[in-house]
Amino acid sequence: MSTNKQIILKKNPVGIPEITDFDTIETDIPEITNNQILTKTVHLSLDPYIRGVITGRHIYSEKVNVGDTIVGRTVSEVVKSNHTNFSEGDIVVCSNGWQEFGVSDGEGVRKLDPSLAPLSTALGILGMPGLTAYAGLTVYGEPKDGDHVVVSAASGPVGCMVGQIAQIYGAKAIGIAGSEEKCSVVKNKFGFIDCINYKTEKIEERLKDLCPDGVDIYFDNVGGETLDTMTRNLAMHARIVLCGFMTQYNLDSPPPGPNLGPIVGSRATIRGVVVYDHYDKQDDFISIASDWLKAGKIDYIEDEVFGLENAPAQFCKLMRGENFGKTIVTIQ
Amino acid sequence: MSTNKQIILKKNPVGIPEITDFDTIETDIPEITNNQILTKTVHLSLDPYIRGVITGRHIYSEKVNVGDTIVGRTVSEVVKSNHTNFSEGDIVVCSNGWQEFGVSDGEGVRKLDPSLAPLSTALGILGMPGLTAYAGLTVYGEPKDGDHVVVSAASGPVGCMVGQIAQIYGAKAIGIAGSEEKCSVVKNKFGFIDCINYKTEKIEERLKDLCPDGVDIYFDNVGGETLDTMTRNLAMHARIVLCGFMTQYNLDSPPPGPNLGPIVGSRATIRGVVVYDHYDKQDDFISIASDWLKAGKIDYIEDEVFGLENAPAQFCKLMRGENFGKTIVTIQ
Repeated sequence: MSTNKQIILKKNPVGIPEITDFDTIETDIPEITNNQILTKTVHLSLDPYIRGVITGRHIYSEKVNVGDTIVGRTVSEVVKSNHTNFSEGDIVVCSNGWQEFGVSDGEGVRKLDPSLAPLSTALGILGMPGLTAYAGLTVYGEPKDGDHVVVSAASGPVGCMVGQIAQIYGAKAIGIAGSEEKCSVVKNKFGFIDCINYKTEKIEERLKDLCPDGVDIYFDNVGGETLDTMTRNLAMHARIVLCGFMTQYNLDSPPPGPNLGPIVGSRATIRGVVVYDHYDKQDDFISIASDWLKAGKIDYIEDEVFGLENAPAQFCKLMRGENFGKTIVTIQ
Repeated sequence: MSTNKQIILKKNPVGIPEITDFDTIETDIPEITNNQILTKTVHLSLDPYIRGVITGRHIYSEKVNVGDTIVGRTVSEVVKSNHTNFSEGDIVVCSNGWQEFGVSDGEGVRKLDPSLAPLSTALGILGMPGLTAYAGLTVYGEPKDGDHVVVSAASGPVGCMVGQIAQIYGAKAIGIAGSEEKCSVVKNKFGFIDCINYKTEKIEERLKDLCPDGVDIYFDNVGGETLDTMTRNLAMHARIVLCGFMTQYNLDSPPPGPNLGPIVGSRATIRGVVVYDHYDKQDDFISIASDWLKAGKIDYIEDEVFGLENAPAQFCKLMRGENFGKTIVTIQ
């Protein structure tokens, strides 16, 4: 292979992205200089935050402009190295974006131990989504034995970890998801005590049955009406962890709000969680969570497609909420 | 005087209350039995939460039904006592409501030390509004030297204390209020560095000047658009203390919401504060705050009228937001 396949932004999406917003191009495989490595993508992670980066609304990443390669985290193999810390054959996690080959000076590149867990988990439950769930739930949510923990987008890589970690802490996990199939997996694979299908069930009614004394922790990945419903169904001194706003990522402007009146009644604490603040916990997290994985205490689901050229269609599916589990594009 | 003047609910208000929703009646002064006291109202406190009690939406108090005496905190004088803890002439804080005489078994009745501060302050800055400000700001807001603390309804009894306590902690206080006169008093009497007139100024633009690095603590007494604006103008790790929802008390149903997206970016913590949780701090607070008052470190404003029969008109004014300072009805 002598070329580098790349997927670039062809035009700025309006609302939910379509595959015609993207283009595939081929360029030469880049040369590396001193202190650089050339890596080849094994797995590419597709995540909702990428929609925000494309719009220019992301907290840290600069906007992806028309003509730019789409950004994204990858598991990659080092195929050439002029860098003292990396050797050919090393497997790393880096941010190569939607392309087959990438060049890096090693900054922000982390070596993976392939014996620890399947490589792709470094983009899911053992990667940023897992760390988000771990830090958000344990630091901000403070789960205690017997707590009722509700999480939206429960079959996703963040949601399934929130519910599983909650159970490890002795709490009762309740999921919210958008299909019977997702709800079934949340209950049967991830061990949640129940999962509410928000498309066919009334969340509020189900909550009154499942946690009549209110929700102790709500870990929110969606925002919107679901969050609004939760504010009215909290236990005293409940904690809401705000993590994602799936209901907003495709909007041009945010919806009106907020009505936080019921938060006063429940004396709830609301915290915004951003995973970048918690890198100091990354090594601990990976060590703990890979032990959990080996011990069968946690599980995961991947929504995998093969071939970089399928990244746009898979991303559009994710942004329509039709994904199921952690979205991965496998290249090699 | 042989009769007890009382103000009762004549009909349930729709939206902002009107004086025709109330009626004045006269009944016999009640007799007391063993372990009871008869008290005569000196000052009656009018507060926005009473609107919620009338609607039946208050967290603790039972709905005021048509025909019932309106509820409210009072400073009262013990005029007869069959109770070992109270003597004739004692000045107490109790919940006699909108009437001249009340009977109590002493539960929830607190003796006042008249030498400490003017009696009416026991309903304002040294009473529940003051304790709300003190507990909410110091426990949940955690003010630090140099913090920018913004408070809405800044000339009210809660708001003026929040800003003054913030200054005692070395923070910079910025008010939001609804008239030039209120803003002037907030700055000149209460020492805030500035006060934004939300009726004539753009809060967001003024904040960008006054705290270019964002607001560290927002103490919210109003909800609605002001709260929404604040969520977009927070410093990293800001704290929002949710205390009151003046924009909602007159509504039949709460407005749509919430959009808490910006809270994630600022990693803000939001807490609901309810003063009833903080009674354990009451003695400390009164001791500290009356020292502050004597030392000239804090000040206050009262919007006083004389005569129980003026309570309805004064309450309607309060609920239209036309009050200025702590609303007090003085009877004696």
